[in-house]
Amino acid sequence: MKKKIRAIQYGVGPIGASIAKLMRDKQAIEIIGAIDLDPAKAERDLGEVVGASDAPWGVKVFADPQQALDLNADVVIHATSSSLAKVMDQLLACLEAQCCIVSTCEELSYPFRTQPELAAKLDAAAKEWGVALVGTGVNPGFVMDKLVLTLAAVSQRIEQAKALRIVDASQRRLPLQKKIGAGLSVDEFRTQVKAGAIKHVGLPESVAMVADSLNLPVENISETIEPKVASERVATEYLTVEKGQAAGVHQIARGLSKDGKELVHLELQMYVGAKDPSDTITLTGHPNISLTIPGGSHGDIATASVVVNSIPVILDAPAGLRTSRDLPIGFFSPSAKP
Amino acid sequence: MKKKIRAIQYGVGPIGASIAKLMRDKQAIEIIGAIDLDPAKAERDLGEVVGASDAPWGVKVFADPQQALDLNADVVIHATSSSLAKVMDQLLACLEAQCCIVSTCEELSYPFRTQPELAAKLDAAAKEWGVALVGTGVNPGFVMDKLVLTLAAVSQRIEQAKALRIVDASQRRLPLQKKIGAGLSVDEFRTQVKAGAIKHVGLPESVAMVADSLNLPVENISETIEPKVASERVATEYLTVEKGQAAGVHQIARGLSKDGKELVHLELQMYVGAKDPSDTITLTGHPNISLTIPGGSHGDIATASVVVNSIPVILDAPAGLRTSRDLPIGFFSPSAKP
Repeated sequence: MKKKIRAIQYGVGPIGASIAKLMRDKQAIEIIGAIDLDPAKAERDLGEVVGASDAPWGVKVFADPQQALDLNADVVIHATSSSLAKVMDQLLACLEAQCCIVSTCEELSYPFRTQPELAAKLDAAAKEWGVALVGTGVNPGFVMDKLVLTLAAVSQRIEQAKALRIVDASQRRLPLQKKIGAGLSVDEFRTQVKAGAIKHVGLPESVAMVADSLNLPVENISETIEPKVASERVATEYLTVEKGQAAGVHQIARGLSKDGKELVHLELQMYVGAKDPSDTITLTGHPNISLTIPGGSHGDIATASVVVNSIPVILDAPAGLRTSRDLPIGFFSPSAKP
Repeated sequence: MKKKIRAIQYGVGPIGASIAKLMRDKQAIEIIGAIDLDPAKAERDLGEVVGASDAPWGVKVFADPQQALDLNADVVIHATSSSLAKVMDQLLACLEAQCCIVSTCEELSYPFRTQPELAAKLDAAAKEWGVALVGTGVNPGFVMDKLVLTLAAVSQRIEQAKALRIVDASQRRLPLQKKIGAGLSVDEFRTQVKAGAIKHVGLPESVAMVADSLNLPVENISETIEPKVASERVATEYLTVEKGQAAGVHQIARGLSKDGKELVHLELQMYVGAKDPSDTITLTGHPNISLTIPGGSHGDIATASVVVNSIPVILDAPAGLRTSRDLPIGFFSPSAKP
């Protein structure tokens, strides 16, 4: 019988907590430790921190990453920040501890065009230590890139790839509703966009992955972030958006050819009160083909799923920086034996 | 600069011809030969046999497989029969010639449960000769298995997997309309089902792939083939189906647990005059999620696409018998350089 996979949860925010709970469900995984700098979480039991009904788990949350990494894990599940620059040292420490990494860091999903130096550094470190890492989740990692490329398998020729994701943020957690600017005036919204405070991270990375994989000659990647203005009052459990206020984001990333032709178009509408949430992919070429997920894939649930399902896959992958594109599909049944 | 991929087309029926034409479009592929026993095709130019507008191609169709295999190809695209037993010798000869294989043989797509001895023999031979082979296409190979497993990546737990493929056979070629029994009386249809003449091959293979990959405890795989009876007269370019006659097949494969619970349900409705053709996948679990391809993926176009898109992937795969599940997604742009 094989041993259980020894996993460390790095970052115990809302996503990290849902990942930890999902890992706890998998017979083949043993969570051996967690890392979080927040004094409200550090030195406590992970099960208690995530509010698990079967707490305590006997799993410690360390404030010092190295103490956790010294436990000799097989894989680190990393969920601390969207910014690759900010998490470089965290990732390098995990690689040096010879741990594979599955990270929710959006900018890690496909950094080869956007941050090639950091990508090269991680790839070299991973190969040096004989481990593999991947940045993934539902978006980037699935809806607007991997699923687009999967559908492309039935295409003979592709001229343009589009994805539209409409998310109703009403049912989502407060930090997410705030992150998309719900309840701000349009002016405040634009100010916060300029300050970099309102932004879904990862669309340019998905554009790059799609363009490179489909061999579409994208030379420039542009991105716009506009408010989705409420046409009527919307009240959620946490906040109220008045008519005329921002209800959320309407963000579009475009991959353009040298002469400005739109080859890749990835559009995210995430706002409270969204009608008909869904994920839709449209490929123009031979043949034209589209695909819809009615209701859309639920952001937090889907991200935790994709991340945990990627664990056996990254453990099997060749050393280096991998992407959701390169990896075979993964599904990790709760009852899968170690 | 890398060399072009040297490919041989084995079998030049309708599917083989459309694969050959698609390969001809790809800059990175050089078709070096073809194989077909049909005296109407053998010893002729492949471009002329497939009716290409740019014929002749200077590519010979051999009646003797070994003569073609002696040309030292990298990959054989094999499209001769749905029956694995019938094509074993063909496949073994290709492996012995150290060619990778992408085959449309439906029973090869996932033979580990249905024909384990043949699967083991092919796997051993492929490993002995250091090459890889895969059976794939649109169904099996994509709609009812790979796409199901791809969608499963956003699931935390799956209780049941369903796929429904509705194909309007009106626009398809005559051999396909005949193969599905269009225009037969219901009695004739049942007689031909009993004789094994009417059957879409590959559903049990897809059930097995889905069950094994999702770790669903399927013990028995059953299959039913019923006529889809025309509720009104339908005329196609080739034939007419009167009201009350069979318009095509309604075929269901089920993966059942020990106690008879339906864990996998794959349903194919392929008939002339089908309304609302589409491919739909439904996963029950946490969360429930579904996906639809409106119009459905076109059988012949999609099969040729999937097969040709699998060529670079199989050349990169470890030696042995592979499945569409194990392989990363492939898309092979016409302009991709060798």
